Amino acid sequence: MLQLLIPRKPNLKGCHQKKLEKIYECYEVVQAHLLPVVALGQLEIDYDELAAAALRCYCTKVPRNVNMAKLRNGYLFPEISIRELQHLEKYPHAKLISLGIGDTTEPIPENIALSMANYARDLSTAEGYSGYGAEQGNKALRKAIADTFYNHVPVKETEVFVSDGAQCDITRFMLLLGSNATIAVQDPSFPAYIDSSVIIGQAGDFEDEVGKYYDIEYMKCRPENNFFPDLTSTSKTDIIFFCSPHNPTGHAATRNQLEHLVEFARDNGSIIVFDSAYAAYITDDSPRSIFEIPGAREVAIEISSFSKFAGFTGVRLGWTVVPEELLFSNGYPVINDFNRIMCTCFNGASNIAQVGGLASLSPEGFQAVRSLVGYYKENAKILLETFNSLGVQVYGGRNAPYVWAQFPGRKSWDIFTEILEKTHITTVPGSGFGPGGEEYLRISAFGHRESILEASKRLENLFS
Amino acid sequence: MLQLLIPRKPNLKGCHQKKLEKIYECYEVVQAHLLPVVALGQLEIDYDELAAAALRCYCTKVPRNVNMAKLRNGYLFPEISIRELQHLEKYPHAKLISLGIGDTTEPIPENIALSMANYARDLSTAEGYSGYGAEQGNKALRKAIADTFYNHVPVKETEVFVSDGAQCDITRFMLLLGSNATIAVQDPSFPAYIDSSVIIGQAGDFEDEVGKYYDIEYMKCRPENNFFPDLTSTSKTDIIFFCSPHNPTGHAATRNQLEHLVEFARDNGSIIVFDSAYAAYITDDSPRSIFEIPGAREVAIEISSFSKFAGFTGVRLGWTVVPEELLFSNGYPVINDFNRIMCTCFNGASNIAQVGGLASLSPEGFQAVRSLVGYYKENAKILLETFNSLGVQVYGGRNAPYVWAQFPGRKSWDIFTEILEKTHITTVPGSGFGPGGEEYLRISAFGHRESILEASKRLENLFS
Repeated sequence: MLQLLIPRKPNLKGCHQKKLEKIYECYEVVQAHLLPVVALGQLEIDYDELAAAALRCYCTKVPRNVNMAKLRNGYLFPEISIRELQHLEKYPHAKLISLGIGDTTEPIPENIALSMANYARDLSTAEGYSGYGAEQGNKALRKAIADTFYNHVPVKETEVFVSDGAQCDITRFMLLLGSNATIAVQDPSFPAYIDSSVIIGQAGDFEDEVGKYYDIEYMKCRPENNFFPDLTSTSKTDIIFFCSPHNPTGHAATRNQLEHLVEFARDNGSIIVFDSAYAAYITDDSPRSIFEIPGAREVAIEISSFSKFAGFTGVRLGWTVVPEELLFSNGYPVINDFNRIMCTCFNGASNIAQVGGLASLSPEGFQAVRSLVGYYKENAKILLETFNSLGVQVYGGRNAPYVWAQFPGRKSWDIFTEILEKTHITTVPGSGFGPGGEEYLRISAFGHRESILEASKRLENLFS
Repeated sequence: MLQLLIPRKPNLKGCHQKKLEKIYECYEVVQAHLLPVVALGQLEIDYDELAAAALRCYCTKVPRNVNMAKLRNGYLFPEISIRELQHLEKYPHAKLISLGIGDTTEPIPENIALSMANYARDLSTAEGYSGYGAEQGNKALRKAIADTFYNHVPVKETEVFVSDGAQCDITRFMLLLGSNATIAVQDPSFPAYIDSSVIIGQAGDFEDEVGKYYDIEYMKCRPENNFFPDLTSTSKTDIIFFCSPHNPTGHAATRNQLEHLVEFARDNGSIIVFDSAYAAYITDDSPRSIFEIPGAREVAIEISSFSKFAGFTGVRLGWTVVPEELLFSNGYPVINDFNRIMCTCFNGASNIAQVGGLASLSPEGFQAVRSLVGYYKENAKILLETFNSLGVQVYGGRNAPYVWAQFPGRKSWDIFTEILEKTHITTVPGSGFGPGGEEYLRISAFGHRESILEASKRLENLFS
């Protein structure tokens, strides 16, 4: 969205013709130089100087990857950080409350932090030191993940791959699939699926008028269809990204919905990439894993994370389950290629983080983490009630740490800006998650309780 | 190499015709199932059962990525681990010494470990907790890296990107380049360059008779050319991977050699990916960074690591420097695309690891780490002297933790096997690093002193 701030046809008065040509020739380059300038709010640009710099520079002969050039603007979350910074420049004394990026704020439970501390300390002893671990993760942790999250379904510890986070695993899986795979995503959806797909070359051109990449199938998830796509009108693709509880709408897919999804994948021979990063937030009996659905082992992988489960956003730890039965069309097991990618392109998650992950799955750790999750769920409830009381239509918030608020007929970046201006609260504009998010805002329930209460008060003042 | 252990034409007596066809149709699949079996040393295979399993299976309609299928066998280092396991099964009482994978063995200096321990402990407090960090790394660490490793050259902290390791950064850079980029590698070389290139689709077909991928330029580095390629006969490529001190030969390129390399890159408009993971092991005045060479900022990035510098192989921390002046052919700055990749496909290195990295760059930490590096260098000296005294021609070992031993006329896997059988020492066969490594072994100097001394004794007994 930042692009909008830059004049598409800058005033080039005073430029010599040669410089002017160079600027247009390297418009992309100039824009690249402008971005950081604009981000700092300095809207006065010396085009003469820029053009002169462009003329001076040595270029390699290496062409820029056309896929990288297809990416839209900045990645959503860094962009929101920039908006926050700009706002603080404008209002240096504002008490900004961030309900935007969805970053955890509460301390890691003590026994988990101490297990990491002890392990880190012992790395300075002959007995405690360890070097390279298995690329697939520590055996005990793989077993604990299988036992804790998949005790009700048949997942083997050797099918669990420990990683440094879900976002990284999404990219690695894209790398495994290559540029010829076709993908479908929920619309709206977490931006990393689409952006990874663009980078690997699967997405085709971006179509401005509809706000979509030509070769990606967007599966509309709106209140009208209970946030589940109409599969009868969904094109067949190789891969179906499906996130539940859903970021950003907060909807947890029902058992019935997931049964339809698995049936759809089996009929089409597709692979589901199930993102269960928020499974710990499920309150009702919605499935916490795709593998609860019969037949899923032959058509799905599951990507998940300790980030929102144990507050490990900065510690970095996640995992992916690849069932042995999942086979490519030639019968080759997907797990073999995933294993090869992990061994070649990754070298294992930090051993300290893995010890923390294991501690969070001990009886004591698990209980502490449940209570941490409960804290954020209570936040979500407060936000949900606030919006409800104000007559704003809201979704999510019950099975997920996100509230999805609807502002009929309005542009989501406009509401984002209005709320930021009037209440000093950052949210995420729904359109940042795809065209299906237009007229919505995602409000994150991650935050200290007092911030959530204060945010509720400010929102009440704004809307009542 | 494991493939060699599997009978190419298995004895299919007793199979029905249908099953037999299925086995040959899915030969790759059957082989995939055999690999783990063979790895465990169970050479009796029930082909009937395998064929039956193959007939039963449901396959998705997703084609396997042709690039993944082009990868050769297993990744080198996991394969060597399998050989070690097989050896221990055969000789359960053998005292195996691993001079293979190059894993660090000595504890992390206490003040560095304690800084991580304290930070991890404080993650359980309101003041000490932190969530998502900047995707590019902690600002203080980026500054410390720039100040410590690049104090003699103009590298800005904003050009330093902190990561979870060099291997991961190599893959991310490949992703940034895309499938149309052409690459050159030293031959022999660290396998991750070629394997990442194959995965992204740059490498072309593997040519069995020469042991090379058709579209990769192999730059021979042998004693005859002082381990520096003959650039007059090197084809122009977009990317030149260059590792110095060189894994596996242990050669640190001289200033004069690197000046030629930069000149060659500038003439061709190529980008050098300079891997300086072993720079801390340089004893003489060889450059520790490519940016010591005038003109390098416009044609090079540098990838490096805390793994072998501070014993962080398991903790996971590395960095990449991308100079602002490095531009694609259209003038677009490479640093912008690298930043985008880091923000989209990665979420920052573990905050605990980053604190450790920062501590290792404090005056006290740096001194402790220097002494750790000194310990491994002393090991290398012992190994070098051992081979010298035995009349085996050896290279490296002075500016690197690797000794490169030559066994004229012999196959490197044969020497590997002979040494393993007769001395219970694992090394790495040179051909694992490319055809240019044939008739060589890489011997790692990472190990406890007593193991190195014991290994020397065993080698003396074998060769004298």
